[in-house]
Amino acid sequence: MPTPRTPAASDEDHRAQMEALQTEMHAKMRAAKEKRGLLIVHTGDGKGKTTAAFGMLTRMLATGKKCAVIQFIKSGADPLEKILQRPTLTWHRVGGGFTWDTQDRAADIASCREGWDLALRYFADPDCAFVLLDELNIVLAYDYLPKDEILTALRAKQEMQHIVITGRGALPELIELADLVTEMREIKHPFKAGIKAQRGIDF
Amino acid sequence: MPTPRTPAASDEDHRAQMEALQTEMHAKMRAAKEKRGLLIVHTGDGKGKTTAAFGMLTRMLATGKKCAVIQFIKSGADPLEKILQRPTLTWHRVGGGFTWDTQDRAADIASCREGWDLALRYFADPDCAFVLLDELNIVLAYDYLPKDEILTALRAKQEMQHIVITGRGALPELIELADLVTEMREIKHPFKAGIKAQRGIDF
Repeated sequence: MPTPRTPAASDEDHRAQMEALQTEMHAKMRAAKEKRGLLIVHTGDGKGKTTAAFGMLTRMLATGKKCAVIQFIKSGADPLEKILQRPTLTWHRVGGGFTWDTQDRAADIASCREGWDLALRYFADPDCAFVLLDELNIVLAYDYLPKDEILTALRAKQEMQHIVITGRGALPELIELADLVTEMREIKHPFKAGIKAQRGIDF
Repeated sequence: MPTPRTPAASDEDHRAQMEALQTEMHAKMRAAKEKRGLLIVHTGDGKGKTTAAFGMLTRMLATGKKCAVIQFIKSGADPLEKILQRPTLTWHRVGGGFTWDTQDRAADIASCREGWDLALRYFADPDCAFVLLDELNIVLAYDYLPKDEILTALRAKQEMQHIVITGRGALPELIELADLVTEMREIKHPFKAGIKAQRGIDF
């Protein structure tokens, strides 16, 4: 919600300001009529790209609809997987971990191809409401999958399906195509202050 | 994970780049030794502030530790509440909804005070590992609670407890005090393209 433009001088002043804001907000809500599946991108150098996508996934699972997660690059399971586990969710992890640990471009590319083939299957499933492609931006930044092939598939996305793509360095063409793009910008990071990654926060 | 600095010319080149990156990453990890509870702030005009906090909450619940959520301002329950429900989680919603709907500063302030009293109780609980104060930044931007009182309590936070604060317009003093700050920056928003808020994505 918006922050106040000017501090209210009195309770009456506050009420008048809020009445005006309510009128403005209601007009905006009336203007937004369309309902359809969104192509969503979380990018930037800050934390929260995958975590916010997991939050959306949780919300979507609460609707009872089918959801799918494909995690590119990462190898370890996120602890929240066990909390979200249910028949309406399928979760795939492809790839052997960080590129600096695998050090094997051919194997990384093969894993990405496997993940993308899975993605295409969920794109084609009319019952699947939500597909999360975690770290796909990294896959594209490393040129592990041909961007034209990916963009073409995303352009042909089912109307009511939501697709969420995470990872730093999102391609300009993907940002152009997407409906909702958020940049997670790092303002302050504990790692740089000598605090290590911690269970529950980072993994 | 980092995006590549220069595209690798060959598989061998890729392997050499990744070896160097691995050395760098391992050195960084060794340098980060400290483990303690973090004061985390999600701010900015973009989406994902609360959603990423909910993702962190889910991850923390997976550790089996006690967590608490206090939602300021908002009135309606988030659908993911029912998925996260468990004995280790307590969830409070204080306040009657958006300030432009309540239009009642005195009532808003009373609700915020109620929420803050709850927060103090969780701050003092040695078994509570994670406290989410949703939209507290808005409360402070509206001057609904005295900032000095809030900052003093946060400065005295238990060492191992994580506290997450969300909402746009975070106070500079809070950013200064926090360990981890992410700005969710709006690059593209579907609302502005006439697409309305949708179940599963927005609420």
